Amino acid sequence: MTDELRKGLEGVLVAESGMSYIDGEAGRLVYRGYDIGDLAAAASYEEVLYLLWNGELPTRDELESFAASMATERAVDDDVLDALDALARADERPMAALRTGVSMLSASEPEADADPEDREATRRMGRRIVAQFPTIIAAYDRCRRGEDPVEPREDLGYAANFLYMLTGEEPTDVAEETFDMALILHADHGLNASTFTAMVIASTLADLYSAVTGGIGALSGPLHGGANQDVMETLMDIDESDMDVVDWVRATRDQGDRIPGWGHRVYKTKDPRAEILQAKLEDLSAADGETKWLDYTTAIEDYLTDEVMLPQKGIAPNVDFYSGSVYYKLGIPIDLYTPIFAMSRAGGWIGHVLEYTEDNRLIRPRGRYTGEFDREVVPLDER
Amino acid sequence: MTDELRKGLEGVLVAESGMSYIDGEAGRLVYRGYDIGDLAAAASYEEVLYLLWNGELPTRDELESFAASMATERAVDDDVLDALDALARADERPMAALRTGVSMLSASEPEADADPEDREATRRMGRRIVAQFPTIIAAYDRCRRGEDPVEPREDLGYAANFLYMLTGEEPTDVAEETFDMALILHADHGLNASTFTAMVIASTLADLYSAVTGGIGALSGPLHGGANQDVMETLMDIDESDMDVVDWVRATRDQGDRIPGWGHRVYKTKDPRAEILQAKLEDLSAADGETKWLDYTTAIEDYLTDEVMLPQKGIAPNVDFYSGSVYYKLGIPIDLYTPIFAMSRAGGWIGHVLEYTEDNRLIRPRGRYTGEFDREVVPLDER
Repeated sequence: MTDELRKGLEGVLVAESGMSYIDGEAGRLVYRGYDIGDLAAAASYEEVLYLLWNGELPTRDELESFAASMATERAVDDDVLDALDALARADERPMAALRTGVSMLSASEPEADADPEDREATRRMGRRIVAQFPTIIAAYDRCRRGEDPVEPREDLGYAANFLYMLTGEEPTDVAEETFDMALILHADHGLNASTFTAMVIASTLADLYSAVTGGIGALSGPLHGGANQDVMETLMDIDESDMDVVDWVRATRDQGDRIPGWGHRVYKTKDPRAEILQAKLEDLSAADGETKWLDYTTAIEDYLTDEVMLPQKGIAPNVDFYSGSVYYKLGIPIDLYTPIFAMSRAGGWIGHVLEYTEDNRLIRPRGRYTGEFDREVVPLDER
Repeated sequence: MTDELRKGLEGVLVAESGMSYIDGEAGRLVYRGYDIGDLAAAASYEEVLYLLWNGELPTRDELESFAASMATERAVDDDVLDALDALARADERPMAALRTGVSMLSASEPEADADPEDREATRRMGRRIVAQFPTIIAAYDRCRRGEDPVEPREDLGYAANFLYMLTGEEPTDVAEETFDMALILHADHGLNASTFTAMVIASTLADLYSAVTGGIGALSGPLHGGANQDVMETLMDIDESDMDVVDWVRATRDQGDRIPGWGHRVYKTKDPRAEILQAKLEDLSAADGETKWLDYTTAIEDYLTDEVMLPQKGIAPNVDFYSGSVYYKLGIPIDLYTPIFAMSRAGGWIGHVLEYTEDNRLIRPRGRYTGEFDREVVPLDER
């Protein structure tokens, strides 16, 4: 026990983990030993989930069994749809609606009374949460547009089924592949605040629904996931301004405002996830012939790199710099960018909970009391 | 940055706080400079809430304004009541229903879009959450008993109104006073796991609804608040056994089972909150002439103290040892003991969030990566 204050816990080692490794200097992200680029190129989100939870990529039989179980568990209860409809009518913010919707899922959990230390039951709960998570986001979005929720389809993959539930139409191959890749890229990232939240909650042996609900709450904060729609809003501001993009960026920076999507607490060089999404944005733009967002993005990156030289100061494009325009081209509403980040990251939260509770220890730090002692309670009328 | 693993963060100082001080050796608990016994004897839960959030006990004018604001904010939307009814029909567990109900409250928060750093708006949100929290618990309990929720009354104090909403009848003076005292005793307790959860979530600048929802999740865990109904269940087991209470305890311990309500990670002597609730249990038993639970409790404490000499090993009665039978005598269903713990502790969660975010720093620890590197993705059909 030391008396050094570790506010923010920066640098404090709280757990050992084989889930993911981040090298912020080299711009490298590893899941369970595999470089993120290799996984994004060759695996599906379902395979990556299996990898994160089990430590190994699945065989074809293992994958088919895992994916089929999840596919049959996608539908949510009518009570949940009713609540989402009420939330949509009340104009609830999407991340808050998601938090409530996921919390409500536990009412239909068939193993809700399982021993909290029953690891197989916990794993099945995790699978059900991941299966139903996209259904909640899509149903909420349909409700607020005054449309009926689209029932999930078991014959589609995880990424394709989400896009189908959102739009009512099967996505194109390039859209499915791009969205699947985006889910893989966001699935885990060390002990970030939402992952750590899920671990603290689960360390009391509370169930996974509590842990994931807490993770959604943490991810909704603007210092964490809550800001990933800012890049797209900036690009739209540029588009509406009729200014040259570089002039716009220069003027914004001259006013002292930051350009979103640049800089990261961990990465001091270009985020490896940004590299991958940049290539997808190029593919999508080539496919539909609309290069506007790509052009703006490229112009900003060239200017901030070559003229302002931000990367030389350790400030480089992060994953949000490209994910916004990729999601926009997939037709995803801007205020769902954080919910779909949560949809992907739920896989990481659950994986970290499974890993941490295997050799569990309640997480309970200390505070340093800075108050007084021995104050006398003065009766109300004499205060 | 050190490389020492601090699993569970035991002893790690994560924040400075003037909220509460615990001396586990002396059996002392202090809120904002006042000994817990002095507050329990002389103040109401509303006064203690004001104290925790503001650092000073209120004057009469301040208290009346604070309590009146809360009293007018007790009712919850019909949408929330509908969801609670659906959860009751689905036989949802009480803490899970509470988590969903509180999460849903944000949909009717008039200042939901306030700047997360607007401290006054956050404070008002906290007041609304505390005001509506008991309404959710009582409404859920009424729904599952097939009865209509009882609308809150503005003319009753916080404690009395809860008991009124639960039963439909105004509580006796001794019941109101006892419950108010129990709420005071549970309102804060340093950086326990649920309080820390709320702080981690709020450190992302997520809203208070997210922080409190996370706190409920953490408190539901059996290693945290989830076990405070065990004592009453044990007393009922003894009652049904037809055995002498000391024989029952001896036989249980001989089988290697622990007697719940004894021992605490922080207190090595009798929990000061247990002392206070013991006196209230005596009052309640004298008032209704039913001394059974008090007799069992006293017999267990005498035996474990005088013969087994547990206190000499640092294992003494904790707050749960007396709170169970107190709540039972107040007519509160056993599986609501943890929800009412949450109802009280919500005041502490919100106070810690207000305090921590005043000089906020994102809470994000490190993990030590123990996995491999440079694994090659083998194509699916070759695995």
